[in-house]
Amino acid sequence: MPLTMNREVFITCAVTGSGGTQDRSPHVPRSPQQIADSAIDAAKAGAAVVHCHVRDPETGAPSRDPALYREVTERIRDSGTDVVLNLTAGMGGDLLFDGTETMNRMSQRSDMAGAEERVAHVVECRPEICTLDCGTMNFAEADYVMVNTPGMLRDMAARMTASGVQIEIEAFDTGHLWFAKQLVAEGIIKDPVLVQLCMGVPWGAPDDLNTFLAMANNVPADWHWSAFALGRNQMAYVAASVLAGGNVRVGLEDNLWLDKGVLATNAQLVERAVGVIEGMGARVITPAEVRTRLNLEKRAPLAR
Amino acid sequence: MPLTMNREVFITCAVTGSGGTQDRSPHVPRSPQQIADSAIDAAKAGAAVVHCHVRDPETGAPSRDPALYREVTERIRDSGTDVVLNLTAGMGGDLLFDGTETMNRMSQRSDMAGAEERVAHVVECRPEICTLDCGTMNFAEADYVMVNTPGMLRDMAARMTASGVQIEIEAFDTGHLWFAKQLVAEGIIKDPVLVQLCMGVPWGAPDDLNTFLAMANNVPADWHWSAFALGRNQMAYVAASVLAGGNVRVGLEDNLWLDKGVLATNAQLVERAVGVIEGMGARVITPAEVRTRLNLEKRAPLAR
Amino acid sequence: MPLTMNREVFITCAVTGSGGTQDRSPHVPRSPQQIADSAIDAAKAGAAVVHCHVRDPETGAPSRDPALYREVTERIRDSGTDVVLNLTAGMGGDLLFDGTETMNRMSQRSDMAGAEERVAHVVECRPEICTLDCGTMNFAEADYVMVNTPGMLRDMAARMTASGVQIEIEAFDTGHLWFAKQLVAEGIIKDPVLVQLCMGVPWGAPDDLNTFLAMANNVPADWHWSAFALGRNQMAYVAASVLAGGNVRVGLEDNLWLDKGVLATNAQLVERAVGVIEGMGARVITPAEVRTRLNLEKRAPLAR
Amino acid sequence: MPLTMNREVFITCAVTGSGGTQDRSPHVPRSPQQIADSAIDAAKAGAAVVHCHVRDPETGAPSRDPALYREVTERIRDSGTDVVLNLTAGMGGDLLFDGTETMNRMSQRSDMAGAEERVAHVVECRPEICTLDCGTMNFAEADYVMVNTPGMLRDMAARMTASGVQIEIEAFDTGHLWFAKQLVAEGIIKDPVLVQLCMGVPWGAPDDLNTFLAMANNVPADWHWSAFALGRNQMAYVAASVLAGGNVRVGLEDNLWLDKGVLATNAQLVERAVGVIEGMGARVITPAEVRTRLNLEKRAPLAR
Repeated sequence: MPLTMNREVFITCAVTGSGGTQDRSPHVPRSPQQIADSAIDAAKAGAAVVHCHVRDPETGAPSRDPALYREVTERIRDSGTDVVLNLTAGMGGDLLFDGTETMNRMSQRSDMAGAEERVAHVVECRPEICTLDCGTMNFAEADYVMVNTPGMLRDMAARMTASGVQIEIEAFDTGHLWFAKQLVAEGIIKDPVLVQLCMGVPWGAPDDLNTFLAMANNVPADWHWSAFALGRNQMAYVAASVLAGGNVRVGLEDNLWLDKGVLATNAQLVERAVGVIEGMGARVITPAEVRTRLNLEKRAPLAR
Repeated sequence: MPLTMNREVFITCAVTGSGGTQDRSPHVPRSPQQIADSAIDAAKAGAAVVHCHVRDPETGAPSRDPALYREVTERIRDSGTDVVLNLTAGMGGDLLFDGTETMNRMSQRSDMAGAEERVAHVVECRPEICTLDCGTMNFAEADYVMVNTPGMLRDMAARMTASGVQIEIEAFDTGHLWFAKQLVAEGIIKDPVLVQLCMGVPWGAPDDLNTFLAMANNVPADWHWSAFALGRNQMAYVAASVLAGGNVRVGLEDNLWLDKGVLATNAQLVERAVGVIEGMGARVITPAEVRTRLNLEKRAPLAR
Repeated sequence: MPLTMNREVFITCAVTGSGGTQDRSPHVPRSPQQIADSAIDAAKAGAAVVHCHVRDPETGAPSRDPALYREVTERIRDSGTDVVLNLTAGMGGDLLFDGTETMNRMSQRSDMAGAEERVAHVVECRPEICTLDCGTMNFAEADYVMVNTPGMLRDMAARMTASGVQIEIEAFDTGHLWFAKQLVAEGIIKDPVLVQLCMGVPWGAPDDLNTFLAMANNVPADWHWSAFALGRNQMAYVAASVLAGGNVRVGLEDNLWLDKGVLATNAQLVERAVGVIEGMGARVITPAEVRTRLNLEKRAPLAR
Repeated sequence: MPLTMNREVFITCAVTGSGGTQDRSPHVPRSPQQIADSAIDAAKAGAAVVHCHVRDPETGAPSRDPALYREVTERIRDSGTDVVLNLTAGMGGDLLFDGTETMNRMSQRSDMAGAEERVAHVVECRPEICTLDCGTMNFAEADYVMVNTPGMLRDMAARMTASGVQIEIEAFDTGHLWFAKQLVAEGIIKDPVLVQLCMGVPWGAPDDLNTFLAMANNVPADWHWSAFALGRNQMAYVAASVLAGGNVRVGLEDNLWLDKGVLATNAQLVERAVGVIEGMGARVITPAEVRTRLNLEKRAPLAR
């Protein structure tokens, strides 16, 4: 079936991520307050969805402390700025080894959590959306394996669904998208289905257009989808995703730069994406419209 | 650059694999003698290359005992039938877990070997080609992760090259092909480069044509390549790969069936592939021609 | 939306065409009796549909004499062999020029008929299907333009629909498929829609897989479709089309050869296609099943 | 071979075209002076190449009067602004009919010129580049056929090459690109080869990404290429073409709008394209760099 341009596009801003980027740009938010503020600015600039990780407020190192997620959630919900909150559930599947002759034991640097622990903050904060990294792969440069086994994915997805949280499937390669269809076929992920095509994350799908279209063509017609590319192709993929019928994601998790030599803020990246989308003749939709499309329930502030 | 049909095609027969197929067909060879005999029959039927795993001669369970590889190698080299021998180096990266709440320890059922051990049989037998599974992924139905980290791949590839053995990169998804280019860029894999596109292995790249073409388009113009699909699309992918400019792989490792309800032998699958290739107007090339193309050195029998 | 393999495939045999092939193979049928006989043999071999042109019985030159079409139709309907009859309506749009400095007049060798004349045999014979070549292009080697303007296509399509004949859109390039969608959008072509993707006809879409998939991906999900490639890739495209979800066309109109140096009959090409399809695990469907799928009405013999 | 992003991009501005757009925007230039001025402004904004048609200075109707081309050429060359001049040779192949029952005669409204006449202005003005529309097709809404037969294309191309003018092949569909390769194979078009992929011109290739990539993948690795899409996808295709490795074309010939409701000037469209390209991390190259790349000779002013 043809790829048809999307004329009503929602923007997700990936606010901070878990990468070691906090020392490479002063704009990468670390503390819950910084993360919430940057998310709110992104929403004001046009992002309907904000995708948040949390970090150690001092060091900026990645964290999965539920208290930090809770503070981010509270600050955003209390802000008066409407936005759909999307929390990562990607932490806790970090497997490392200490060398190629000691593969029979995990490195102490690994962070391998159980399913319950990995979704604890989702169950507690009940964001409207949370992510599910839909496979296992070598991730980025170091000898780090992102581990999400089929059993773990089934377990986590069931917990997310039981909590009333919309799953955003993250597909980092074509096989992840294939397994996502399996989860839908098994009834573990239910309608409406939402998938993010993650292009250019080493060593997943590269961000060339042939690979992107193979993935876009493989999204079922009744799913909702978005895409992004890491790094300097971020804005090019805003255009490519809209052309192919998808929504878009930008933000400092994926790219630090506005222009050559100019470090970006999240709001600036969102503004740039709005310009690209509107320049193409499409419209940027609101959080309320995203909720209608994905059948999301707007959350009340967390009980305190 | 355009995909152009390959008019001179070599066939690899994947003779037995490591899957639990030995009880599903009487034709899946188990003992070194059975494996060698089936490989030789495949060569006589037109396979220029035979890709061999070894199995426990009694149970058919996968094995990585160098003595079994040695016996297969000797039997094939002594047979008087010319064929290029390709041994797997895929064993020894099997990671399992015992449940989604105990992810912080490996299951005892894991088989995680060091780099030296994983290539020991390659160093000893010096096949003309050995395989390198170029990434980490959830593999097939069970909660089994095929682990090949970047560091491990660099280490194994360097050992293979040092042994004078041609590497066949196995790319199970688009990210594996991307990392293979990285190994070539780093000089760890040297010209001529050979890659096998492995389609339809859960949970790697699915075997639809869009995904296949994304991978085929991403093979550099000066690399040699082949492709296969698992299961009932095996023969369709013989046609597709030739059309896209590649070589082909068939065999019982990937597919047990000749026709609906008819279990195949390796030789029969090779014969069927020869028919498809010749029916398309292409020619099946010989082991000697493969050696010229890949700059391989024909091996003498192993010293005893 | 993903391309999914077609597991229930119908075969069209293009029996004779209009090309200058009649002197290149003794098997290319010329007279109505030869054409009908070859069509019937093709049906017996597994073709559910036979696509027929007519030729001058003596010279084999292409003809559009309604009496010849009528004889072919009668012979096939009277044969007792069930098959869906598909008559070409491609004749009568042949524009030639006599040199590059006399472009302001048509060559006398042109055959440019009006809409009524071009569909006269369709109205008279009422085949279950007739073709509509959905565009204008340089056709094959000589300076011959196949002319089918938008206005002519609208006119012819309306006449075909009014006669109760199912249209098979012939798309020789991506723009033809685009215009076909326009005719459907205008309501001139009605459900069920059937399109044939014609690959490798100079100077339309080439028969490489990238172009083929661009076209296959652009067929709306609720259309029926088939594909073929000219010449030696005919059988490869049987496999490719089935893999991509389509039906198939073979026959002497498109390819004269069974194997290198072996001239084919229509029945042999159909048999070969049956083998490829069944080898892929798909089933070849019957004329009755095609009628159900396309909502066709089986015709009674022509009144005489 | 992979599509790799182009990091050094040249912009062509298609200044005015031949479409009936002159009454739809006050910015569409009509007179030679207006055309030259708009081209010069586009060059100042970053276009390395300006592609010009001429029009009747009063009515804005398309013209192929060599005197008008000469005036445009003189004005641009005398301007002191450096830019590569590209003149269309697309006029003079307009075939129309007066109805679907009178197809055996050309309409008086046709404009069918001989080869010599079609390239007269090219021979006289010796632009650095001229275009060659590489096929025949139904063009846009009316019953107008753009006629460029193989013989005519061979004739025109030979005249262009003999004049020392670089040919820019215009490929409006996949078959046009195929025939362009034929002209190169015949030695009629010589290195360096330059092709423009024209997306979204009815009824040629539609501007969906699958079709675009089929064409981009089919450009030989040693050709230079550019792409554009008609209408509101113009800027999206700037991004897509750069991502796929190509150069870009914008301008009022293809698109009148800067934003919804805001009519553009050529300079504004070029500025917008520069922003997209630089935002992607690529560099816009100069006329001098284009000349080096295409081996063009900078022209002296025309003798008077």
